[in-house]
Amino acid sequence: MPFNQFSIIESTLREGEQFNTATFTTAQKVEIVGLLDDFGVEMIEMTSPSASPQSEEDIRVITRQGYKARILTHIRCHKDDARRALDTGVDGLDIVIGTSPQLMQHSHGKNIRQIIDLAADVMGFIREQKPDIILRFSTEDTFRSREADLLRVYLAVADLGLVNRFGVADTVGVATPNQVYAMVQQLVRLTKLDIEFHGHNDSGCAIANATAALEAGATHIDTTVLGIGERNGITPLGGLVARLYTLNREYVRKYKLTLLPQIDQKIADICDLDIPFNNYITGAAAFIHKAGIHAKAVLADPTTYEILRPEDFGLTREIAIGHRLTGWNAVRARSQALGLLLDDDTVRDVTHTIKQRADTQPLTLAEIDALLQEAAGRLIVAAVEAGK
Amino acid sequence: MPFNQFSIIESTLREGEQFNTATFTTAQKVEIVGLLDDFGVEMIEMTSPSASPQSEEDIRVITRQGYKARILTHIRCHKDDARRALDTGVDGLDIVIGTSPQLMQHSHGKNIRQIIDLAADVMGFIREQKPDIILRFSTEDTFRSREADLLRVYLAVADLGLVNRFGVADTVGVATPNQVYAMVQQLVRLTKLDIEFHGHNDSGCAIANATAALEAGATHIDTTVLGIGERNGITPLGGLVARLYTLNREYVRKYKLTLLPQIDQKIADICDLDIPFNNYITGAAAFIHKAGIHAKAVLADPTTYEILRPEDFGLTREIAIGHRLTGWNAVRARSQALGLLLDDDTVRDVTHTIKQRADTQPLTLAEIDALLQEAAGRLIVAAVEAGK
Repeated sequence: MPFNQFSIIESTLREGEQFNTATFTTAQKVEIVGLLDDFGVEMIEMTSPSASPQSEEDIRVITRQGYKARILTHIRCHKDDARRALDTGVDGLDIVIGTSPQLMQHSHGKNIRQIIDLAADVMGFIREQKPDIILRFSTEDTFRSREADLLRVYLAVADLGLVNRFGVADTVGVATPNQVYAMVQQLVRLTKLDIEFHGHNDSGCAIANATAALEAGATHIDTTVLGIGERNGITPLGGLVARLYTLNREYVRKYKLTLLPQIDQKIADICDLDIPFNNYITGAAAFIHKAGIHAKAVLADPTTYEILRPEDFGLTREIAIGHRLTGWNAVRARSQALGLLLDDDTVRDVTHTIKQRADTQPLTLAEIDALLQEAAGRLIVAAVEAGK
Repeated sequence: MPFNQFSIIESTLREGEQFNTATFTTAQKVEIVGLLDDFGVEMIEMTSPSASPQSEEDIRVITRQGYKARILTHIRCHKDDARRALDTGVDGLDIVIGTSPQLMQHSHGKNIRQIIDLAADVMGFIREQKPDIILRFSTEDTFRSREADLLRVYLAVADLGLVNRFGVADTVGVATPNQVYAMVQQLVRLTKLDIEFHGHNDSGCAIANATAALEAGATHIDTTVLGIGERNGITPLGGLVARLYTLNREYVRKYKLTLLPQIDQKIADICDLDIPFNNYITGAAAFIHKAGIHAKAVLADPTTYEILRPEDFGLTREIAIGHRLTGWNAVRARSQALGLLLDDDTVRDVTHTIKQRADTQPLTLAEIDALLQEAAGRLIVAAVEAGK
């Protein structure tokens, strides 16, 4: 069944390291993996040991910690890379080789027949060394590759019986949900292997594409925290969670969702980034309601304008009040929050004042509170006068 | 034909005003509309005159300027709202009423039969007053409405022969591309009217959903600059452009794409926002290439890892060099940019030094330049020595 069995391959420590301002120290990697493991991601992918000595050493540090999450590293389809990676003690190897005309020409210079031979050689070598390792083979730039080329490569590699999982990668962020669905569905049907989707977000479909992959039977989705990666990045962990949650909250119940704000903030801090104002779930604006009509309905029932419950992520909603679009329901709710017992006519009067002033310049919450308290004061004075 | 005839309804001055920090002055509205009109959006939607006196006055100011873009305002399905809106001189009215069980209960309290009667009354009134006005009728929260309810409403309103366009709205950001496709396709087939899609982004599918709508025959897409709107907003103008450009550059050739960075920056400045690091096209990271393999290929041919050409948006790409994932091709390109004639062995030596140092801490470009210049200096000294 789609969605009921899927794993997140959290690649902040691999794809994420390819983001401009991301360079993680050993201590930071330990901290990040700890958080992600606690959150419940099933697999964590780290930069290839061939990238640098520190990258190699860091994998050893992480694999020694005994996390629940499986630790993977991502390597080129080279025996040397495989040898170094095997030596680190990782649970799995993610092998990649470009199959688009662009990458065959400018990345490795091999044709399809050579790619198949190389894959057979490298996969065979790995299986010989570590029969139980989790082995993934992925094409790179899958969605600009010729379909015939892809099928030749995937079917030849499947026939070897050496790999556990195939990857498909939207390396430049060009795929559409329908294309992803068709490709994944075809591979599931033809190979019966696990299928992983990796999608860049250049044209804004990384979340929709990951979801289409799961609908088609993909078993693994690559994410990074805040989506960081090459260029503007890939499917964000929080964004994928938001999408799956809205389809069926059960799909993401296995994760500790209340950790998400801390995880996003941690990566933002380390990479010297602001969490985008419009970030899924954890962006500053995610649970702010502004227009009077929205505020009124949300105060009556939050599900009117909320498909995500902020409290499920340890967050709270906010009703913006001091602006020209405000309505009296929001003002009444604020007066109640302040413990003021204002009658409806008074609340409407204060709302009128707020709207009038805010039409020129928004009011702060303190200014609104002052208006409400003044109104309450006038009522008391009037009551006292009347009682005289 | 899908995609060949579509219009953008730019709603920064309506949906965008519902973003927490957005309150536009008259002067700012004039500036924003000027930029959007110059960019080439076909329609601009403004806040209802019923929202506030300033909102009403601002519509009059804008409609008097004689822009190419049609000026619309967005109102509730009320005769009073319609009367005020008609009086402002707008080219079109966008009418909305909630049809989901949630909104029928908590927003306006009407049932489907009452909604139909009200729509007939309000649309009839508007057409009587202004036979030539562009009139849109939209349900709100379309994708949580009962399909039978939607069809009753749309088919009854279509039968009146009064409206030019129907709107479908993913008000809470829950729809999937397939749902949007099916709904739009059905309305196109049944009503033969123009169809507009408005999609929120809570679960990250606003761009994919807008694209699915166009594939199904929608004629109008709502956007805002940077996607600002209620909560985390709607389909962003730049994100929609990125998506359509990657499908076929011709689809967006009608817009002045080089204005996009200025437009995004303008709204960010006015709303006191940072443009998200991962924003489509104009985010700081959109055209940065980091990993050595990526840098090598992009230097040979940018299309290897770029589906959007930065120069089409008046932007430039950047190759990040001073990090542990760097490669010698990127270092060689930098030495060439500095006008240094270093042989390959020297470049490889410098690359080794950079990688080694950067494995602990990234290097600045100035530090890299210094290393390259030192190497060039040593070569000159060696040449002089050899010539002695």
